[in-house]
Amino acid sequence: MPEHPLASPLLAGDRRALARAITLTESTRPDHEAEAQALLSELLPHTGRSIRVGLTGVPGVGKSTLIEALGLHLADGGHRVAVLAVDPSSARTGGSIMGDKTRMPRLTVHPGAYIRPSPSRGTLGGVARRTREAILLCEAAGYDVVLVETVGVGQSETQVAAMTDLFVLLTLPNAGDELQGIKRGIMELADLCVVNKADTDPKAATRAQTELTAALRLLTPRGAPWRPRALQASAVTGAGIPELWAAVGAYREAVDIAARRREQTGAWFDDLLREAAWRAFQAGLDPARLRELRGEVLAGRLTPVQGVGTLLSPVPT
Amino acid sequence: MPEHPLASPLLAGDRRALARAITLTESTRPDHEAEAQALLSELLPHTGRSIRVGLTGVPGVGKSTLIEALGLHLADGGHRVAVLAVDPSSARTGGSIMGDKTRMPRLTVHPGAYIRPSPSRGTLGGVARRTREAILLCEAAGYDVVLVETVGVGQSETQVAAMTDLFVLLTLPNAGDELQGIKRGIMELADLCVVNKADTDPKAATRAQTELTAALRLLTPRGAPWRPRALQASAVTGAGIPELWAAVGAYREAVDIAARRREQTGAWFDDLLREAAWRAFQAGLDPARLRELRGEVLAGRLTPVQGVGTLLSPVPT
Repeated sequence: MPEHPLASPLLAGDRRALARAITLTESTRPDHEAEAQALLSELLPHTGRSIRVGLTGVPGVGKSTLIEALGLHLADGGHRVAVLAVDPSSARTGGSIMGDKTRMPRLTVHPGAYIRPSPSRGTLGGVARRTREAILLCEAAGYDVVLVETVGVGQSETQVAAMTDLFVLLTLPNAGDELQGIKRGIMELADLCVVNKADTDPKAATRAQTELTAALRLLTPRGAPWRPRALQASAVTGAGIPELWAAVGAYREAVDIAARRREQTGAWFDDLLREAAWRAFQAGLDPARLRELRGEVLAGRLTPVQGVGTLLSPVPT
Repeated sequence: MPEHPLASPLLAGDRRALARAITLTESTRPDHEAEAQALLSELLPHTGRSIRVGLTGVPGVGKSTLIEALGLHLADGGHRVAVLAVDPSSARTGGSIMGDKTRMPRLTVHPGAYIRPSPSRGTLGGVARRTREAILLCEAAGYDVVLVETVGVGQSETQVAAMTDLFVLLTLPNAGDELQGIKRGIMELADLCVVNKADTDPKAATRAQTELTAALRLLTPRGAPWRPRALQASAVTGAGIPELWAAVGAYREAVDIAARRREQTGAWFDDLLREAAWRAFQAGLDPARLRELRGEVLAGRLTPVQGVGTLLSPVPT
C-alpha cells in the first residue's frame, strides 16, 4: 500500500503534518474522507500510547487557565501535550472555545505542546468523531498526554467521557451552594473533581472538596476499581497541579485502561452502525406522515406503539 | 368501532377485566397484540389521571414492605392504588420479584389495591413496553396512584424513570458508607431519596439523610423546578410514610407533569421507531461478517469508521 505523504513527517512529530492531517479528517469532501481513513489506517499501529484526559466545567470555572497550567507543568517535565476541544456550538456560533492561542498564550508557544480548536463543522456526532480521530493522530505524532476539553453543551460531556481514559469535572469553591448549573448526569461521569480557583476562598474550597468527596462516595458503586476523588487546585498559583497529575497516575494504576478503551471502541462501532441504520430507514419515511403521526401520539390519540405501527404499515390505497 | 368486551367492565373498575386486559397486552400472539392495541386505543381517553411513581433500591432495602406501607396508607385514605413491577430478570429466572401476593400480604387483600407482578417474558424493552401499557390500563380502571417497582437489573431504572412522573430511590441508614452498590447514574434519576428502615439505626439514618441531601443538592442544576429531597421512613413503624406522600404532593405542585409525560411519550415513540429501523437494517446484515469486522475494530486493526464502512460496502466479487 502506498504510504500517505503525511505519514512519515507526522510519525516524526512534525506539527505542520499533524495539523494538515487533522484538517484532512475534518473535511467533508468524500475524496478527503477516504484519504483520511487511509491515513488513519496506516497510523493505527502507532496510536494508543497516550493518556487521554477529558475535562469539563461550566463557563467561568477557569478551564483554559487550568489546562494551560497542567499542560505547562507536564511539558516542562518532558511530556508532549496535545490539547483538543469538543465544542458543537462552534458549528453555529463560530465557537465559544475561540481563540485558543489567546486563551493559552504560554502553552501555545511551548515546543512540547500542540493546541487545536474544536472542529467548527457538523453535528455533535460529527465533531465527536473528528475529535476521536484527532486523538489518534496526536498519539501517532508522539503526544503522550491528550487533554480533551468540552464546553458542556448538550451531550458533549458524555461524548468526551466516552473517548477519554478519565474524566475531570472542574468546579468552583462555592460549588457546595449549587454546583453552578452542572447538568444532571455529569457528576456521575467524573473520575476526578477539581475545585479550581481554590486560592480565591480557601475555606469555601475546603468545604466544597469535603462535600464533593461525600457526593462522589455516594455515587460510586461498592467494589468499583477506582473511587473518584475531589481535589483543590489553583491555576494561578500552581497549587494542586502536581497533585492532580498524581491522581491521574493513581487512576492509571487502578483501572484497566485497555479494557475501558476496548469497550469505548465497541460502543463507538455500535453507535456508527445504529446511525447508519437510522439514516437508511429515515430515507424511506415520509417526513410529513412522521410528523403527523408523532403529533397524534403526543396528543394522546394514539399510543406510541400504534403510531409507529401506522407509520410503518403500507398506506391504504 | 365495535367496543372490546373488556372495555366496559374495565372502565367500571372490575379487577378481573383489568387482569385479563393486562394479560392480553402481555401476549406475543399477533392476533392478541392487535386486539390489545385496539383495546388500548379505545381506553386511551380514560387514561392519564393517576400519579405514576417509580421506586427502586437494591435487594434488602425493603422495597416490598415500604410499598405495602405506602399503599395501605393511601388505600385506607380512599385512594385506589395499583402496584406494577419491572423485572427483566424474570424472563430468565422466573422472577426475582416473585410471589407478590406473599410479599405484600395485607395490600393484596385490600379492596382499594391491585398488585400485578412483572411480565415474565421478553427483553427489558418488551417488559418496559408492557408495563407502560399496564399503567394505562390501571388508569382506565380508575386507579389514581400507580406504583412501579424495579429490581434494578440492567437498565431497568432508566426505563422506569422514563415511564413515571417521579422516581424514588430507597436506601438504608448506612447509605453514607457506600450506598450499597447503587449503580452509576441512578442517583441522578431520583426525585426523592428515602432512607428506609430508619428505626433500626436512627443516628445513622439522620447522617445518611444529611449526606444524601448534600449529594442531591450537588446533582441538581440551578433553576430546576424541583429540588430532590432526602427523607427518612420506616415501613415497620409507619414513620415517614405520610411525609413521603406529602413530598409527592409537593413535587406535583412544582413540576409540569403533563409536559414531562409529553416528553416521555415522544421519546418512547422515537425509541420504537429507532428499534424498528435497527431490526429492518439488521435483517440485511451478515452476522458472521459483522462479528468479524467488529473483531478487527476491537483488535485495533481498523477504525470504527472503517469497520462500519467495510461492513456496509458491497462484498467484492
